Amino acid sequence: MKIDLNCDLGESFGRYSLGDDAAIMPLITSANIACGFHAGDASVMQATVRLAKKHGVVVGAHPGWPDLQGFGRRDMALSPKETEALVLYQIGALAAFAKAEGMELRHVKPHGALYNQSAKDAGLAEAVARAVKRFSVELALVGLAGSRSVEAARGMGLRVLEEGFPDRGYTPDGQLIPRSQAGAILPSVEAVAAHAVSLAMDGIALGEKRIRVDTLCLHGDNAHAAENARRVRSALETAGVEVAAN
Amino acid sequence: MKIDLNCDLGESFGRYSLGDDAAIMPLITSANIACGFHAGDASVMQATVRLAKKHGVVVGAHPGWPDLQGFGRRDMALSPKETEALVLYQIGALAAFAKAEGMELRHVKPHGALYNQSAKDAGLAEAVARAVKRFSVELALVGLAGSRSVEAARGMGLRVLEEGFPDRGYTPDGQLIPRSQAGAILPSVEAVAAHAVSLAMDGIALGEKRIRVDTLCLHGDNAHAAENARRVRSALETAGVEVAAN
Amino acid sequence: MKIDLNCDLGESFGRYSLGDDAAIMPLITSANIACGFHAGDASVMQATVRLAKKHGVVVGAHPGWPDLQGFGRRDMALSPKETEALVLYQIGALAAFAKAEGMELRHVKPHGALYNQSAKDAGLAEAVARAVKRFSVELALVGLAGSRSVEAARGMGLRVLEEGFPDRGYTPDGQLIPRSQAGAILPSVEAVAAHAVSLAMDGIALGEKRIRVDTLCLHGDNAHAAENARRVRSALETAGVEVAAN
Amino acid sequence: MKIDLNCDLGESFGRYSLGDDAAIMPLITSANIACGFHAGDASVMQATVRLAKKHGVVVGAHPGWPDLQGFGRRDMALSPKETEALVLYQIGALAAFAKAEGMELRHVKPHGALYNQSAKDAGLAEAVARAVKRFSVELALVGLAGSRSVEAARGMGLRVLEEGFPDRGYTPDGQLIPRSQAGAILPSVEAVAAHAVSLAMDGIALGEKRIRVDTLCLHGDNAHAAENARRVRSALETAGVEVAAN
Repeated sequence: MKIDLNCDLGESFGRYSLGDDAAIMPLITSANIACGFHAGDASVMQATVRLAKKHGVVVGAHPGWPDLQGFGRRDMALSPKETEALVLYQIGALAAFAKAEGMELRHVKPHGALYNQSAKDAGLAEAVARAVKRFSVELALVGLAGSRSVEAARGMGLRVLEEGFPDRGYTPDGQLIPRSQAGAILPSVEAVAAHAVSLAMDGIALGEKRIRVDTLCLHGDNAHAAENARRVRSALETAGVEVAAN
Repeated sequence: MKIDLNCDLGESFGRYSLGDDAAIMPLITSANIACGFHAGDASVMQATVRLAKKHGVVVGAHPGWPDLQGFGRRDMALSPKETEALVLYQIGALAAFAKAEGMELRHVKPHGALYNQSAKDAGLAEAVARAVKRFSVELALVGLAGSRSVEAARGMGLRVLEEGFPDRGYTPDGQLIPRSQAGAILPSVEAVAAHAVSLAMDGIALGEKRIRVDTLCLHGDNAHAAENARRVRSALETAGVEVAAN
Repeated sequence: MKIDLNCDLGESFGRYSLGDDAAIMPLITSANIACGFHAGDASVMQATVRLAKKHGVVVGAHPGWPDLQGFGRRDMALSPKETEALVLYQIGALAAFAKAEGMELRHVKPHGALYNQSAKDAGLAEAVARAVKRFSVELALVGLAGSRSVEAARGMGLRVLEEGFPDRGYTPDGQLIPRSQAGAILPSVEAVAAHAVSLAMDGIALGEKRIRVDTLCLHGDNAHAAENARRVRSALETAGVEVAAN
Repeated sequence: MKIDLNCDLGESFGRYSLGDDAAIMPLITSANIACGFHAGDASVMQATVRLAKKHGVVVGAHPGWPDLQGFGRRDMALSPKETEALVLYQIGALAAFAKAEGMELRHVKPHGALYNQSAKDAGLAEAVARAVKRFSVELALVGLAGSRSVEAARGMGLRVLEEGFPDRGYTPDGQLIPRSQAGAILPSVEAVAAHAVSLAMDGIALGEKRIRVDTLCLHGDNAHAAENARRVRSALETAGVEVAAN
């Protein structure tokens, strides 16, 4: 029983600081690092890769739409061709900082609206997977468990890491409950920690079936991020789940 | 007797088209491809790398200041640390497109104001060279012949390609005649072609000494670019100079 | 019988030149000037306003999504609140150049994806109209004839200019034929000129009714733009339609 | 005896929050609002103008270089012509939000590197002043007391507000002590408050002469900003100086 704990980091930009990366990094096993389109800049990327190296955390690219003001959270209608090029660009940019530190990227996880759009749209899902594969067949794609993203990547022969969200409620058919509805966000850190254990041990219920979960997403940009991460990690370890990159 | 012919390409951006890359590419031996900061975008970079591959032209990164409106031609005061990160980012971004095509970057040539500033400022020259070296010791640095740029890169053990400008006049001490002065721009394509031959065979006069020239810069963004490139290439071949990447 | 001829101008950016504004300006009666988000920059805006002034052409703001790479043609999901602020910003920026030349803005015409999205989405249509009204109740809104855009603006008491496209075919219910279908683009400049006359004299057929057309959109960014504009203008004048801003 | 207290506000951007504008606004008499180039965005500008209105604070434009990553603090070499257009653009953008709230801009204060470069370079100083004047002869220029900025604006017939920095030490010839030298930053809030009183009452010593100070710059982006502003304001009032916009 093993689970990866991932977090979106390196989201500061120039004079703007976001998230407490130094406090979160020691608590996770893989870092998704912003690549300068929706957040992050070259200097932040370099510092974040070095911080990950210091803590033995594996690194992955976290590409997003070219929308810094919207933090990559606003849907955009790029063609699959444009999307592929834009993802490949961002993977390469981050890979340079990893290379400079003697590290290799382990994975690619699309950010925000690109994550959500490619989870539903097969054309975008394939574009992202194609970019990943063109960069390296060794790279894993991190995507919403059970979504088009992981399906497309798996179909191209890529390794996929199915992602679960401990702080989010799921519908009986394995979907995230929309944020506008009751139950979307779990009410307490205890509930989140218990959910993390359940996702790691049992995956996500999908009718009679179960979707395996390989990696859990923790959040780094709220006031209690580090404390919450500690609680989740501790609950997993207490339950006998090994916390490690996979 | 061998000379490389390089040209800055991939300078289109989104809806904006610049330069006649398709006409120039077959005439040169190495392409400096813009990386999305002063010009170019992910889609243009992908297309330009593919065009280079088709014509057997070696590719290099052409990083610039983050100044699209100014086309990277306006001096900016970034610290060496910021500059290193920004150059490394751009090298990585372009390298991803090369990797996707089974190619490797051969060189890095800074663009515009970054080229000129790092030719004079040792701190910036070292920052650029450090970025190149951190990415790969196999990469060559293309810089103004006899400048701080090539000096810094050579001092770090990098391969350097000293660059000459066939269309520009030089002072007796080996400097480019400033554009504001008479003689800065050679008057005819015949004069440019003859100068190209002289640079390739004899280098640049620096008092009693000569600075070797490894690569000649052709321009791709004017109306007669392709015709001029053809004339230069033909003059070199007629003079017995082999035109090839080095 | 009077018609306004408008064209999107000022779409160059920094080193990138787009459209033949100098040739088109004398042929139109109102100019929609890009405001630096999807195209244009401060220097281009200043030059374009001055060119309009020289030719006695009325000027309007042409705001777009913040997407220079996509030229504002890619759908984006901004909230009405964000959209209102973004449109107000762009109106103000252009108004400064008009003010500096002793001119006033006559209208606002959203660009590209913002034009199309606000033609269909009431929330966005109201956001655009609100921005226009907050700037000045004297400003007219130029929108797709018969669309949500003009409806929202009229509902707020703004003057509207319903826009027709001489080079585009319309469905029997007054919609533009989608570009993917036959008949979307008229086949010849003669057909376009005849259609311009029909739009100006009879408006757009909508079942039994007719939608009035106040302004015709000419295109400035193709090779024959000026010649086509001349033909349209000449056909209108021959038919006895006065070509003038309204 | 009267003094204006100004502060740079509206420096947040999208998801990035900077400064405690809500706490500072009630303590100052004029707000310099970032205009989207070095900081701020359309939504932030709208919110900041409304906050100023609520507290009866006069507003001015705070234009900067187009360098969000560098927060407008890195020198850039734009021509006077480009600078004029860029300043005019930013003034207009902010003016739209003021207009929408029934307010008028009172002043323009260049930001960061543009402030410092135009304080020394007559060409840039004139470019800024020309932009201000072209927008409105009613607008005041806020510039470093005794600098080229105020000289150029005064020479064009503009009203100027000479600015002093209570937290910075001055050389005997009226210059700011460079940040790299001892005495550049005053050591305590008490020293800052006393300096504020001295600047307001006596101006800046320049050999035998004194440079008048019309407005004092407070900082909004550090942890103790509000508390410091309160102390400065209280010291001024205790000394009998009226704190009010001028």
